[in-house]
Amino acid sequence: MSQLLHIDSSVQGDLSVSRRLSARAAQRWLAVHPGGSVTYRDLALNPVPHLDATTGMARLIPAGQRTAEQQASFALSVELVDEIKRADTLILGLPLYNFGPPSTVKAWVDHIVAQGLSIDADTGAGTLTGTDFVVLASRGGGYGAGTPRAGWDHNEAWLPHAVALTGLTPRFITAELTMADANPALAELRPLAAESLRRAVGAVDGLWAADENAA
Amino acid sequence: MSQLLHIDSSVQGDLSVSRRLSARAAQRWLAVHPGGSVTYRDLALNPVPHLDATTGMARLIPAGQRTAEQQASFALSVELVDEIKRADTLILGLPLYNFGPPSTVKAWVDHIVAQGLSIDADTGAGTLTGTDFVVLASRGGGYGAGTPRAGWDHNEAWLPHAVALTGLTPRFITAELTMADANPALAELRPLAAESLRRAVGAVDGLWAADENAA
Repeated sequence: MSQLLHIDSSVQGDLSVSRRLSARAAQRWLAVHPGGSVTYRDLALNPVPHLDATTGMARLIPAGQRTAEQQASFALSVELVDEIKRADTLILGLPLYNFGPPSTVKAWVDHIVAQGLSIDADTGAGTLTGTDFVVLASRGGGYGAGTPRAGWDHNEAWLPHAVALTGLTPRFITAELTMADANPALAELRPLAAESLRRAVGAVDGLWAADENAA
Repeated sequence: MSQLLHIDSSVQGDLSVSRRLSARAAQRWLAVHPGGSVTYRDLALNPVPHLDATTGMARLIPAGQRTAEQQASFALSVELVDEIKRADTLILGLPLYNFGPPSTVKAWVDHIVAQGLSIDADTGAGTLTGTDFVVLASRGGGYGAGTPRAGWDHNEAWLPHAVALTGLTPRFITAELTMADANPALAELRPLAAESLRRAVGAVDGLWAADENAA
């Protein structure tokens, strides 16, 4: 049976564009994979703890040397990595906050990149190559080529590097200028924002077309 | 009286290169500013909470509409921003984890970028322009121009953008290849690592030379 892992991270609830896109992607996935099973994780409602002074080294030391706190932190890494391994497809709703990911997404990444779990301890090969990773991204402004802040969307540049060792390869569908509707100063950008959202929705609706044809 | 704010974030304790560099920078600062006052914050020992579904909107809504949880989150933003405003100099020990900042540093940034606090609510100007921001950075590998992973240090690219609206302008002193000593596979890079650390220490020892001459 096909398995989807659906993760959201926006703190904006119903106002979130990344949540709207990831929900649509989940619907699309279910339409293409009838009877498929979905696991949902909300990093804004149930954040993954920071790696800190007590737990942070858990993934870098041998099992026998871990403190109780480190054992608990490592157990969460096991849970999060297994969740991805079980999934044929992972979709992540990813907003851009201060030009980077929500800190909860950074903490999730720091938990899942782990020798012996997502990285084979003997060969160094990533163990998550079997999971298709689709990112439903949103950003309040426009940071494309030719704009004054071109390159300020650091999620797109960072995330592929962050998970590279695990074998995950994110592909992005992005809606931008999402602040234009709420911000009067950006009113003239609303047509561009609407066009960006329309394109993102179209890209979502075209996901997994090969699976659809095979079904 | 001169005021220094010293922040660390590495989870590696005594093994941390960024902590060693930031401690040396604090010593250097005290030597140049005798009688100066130092405030210390350890983000690994006392992490700043994630922005989450309960607290995340606190900085985007009017004071009168905040829930009790949002009021507490906003109060922490006030505390963190005031701490920076009081400081002539801010030094941040910043390691690179999975090619980005510790999630605790992202959470700290997400707390300090706030309308009405670090951004003037009327003019939009950054209010933290009076604080010199020095980053003592470390990275386990080498990501300079010409290396296979050139550009994978996303801290250096991201942080200046992340705090731009506040008026803070970080300048970086970086030691790289810090994993070479511990990792036998990187043994041949140890001379380069030692040279990188030597240069970083030299740059720290040259900080605030203008203040020294003025004193």
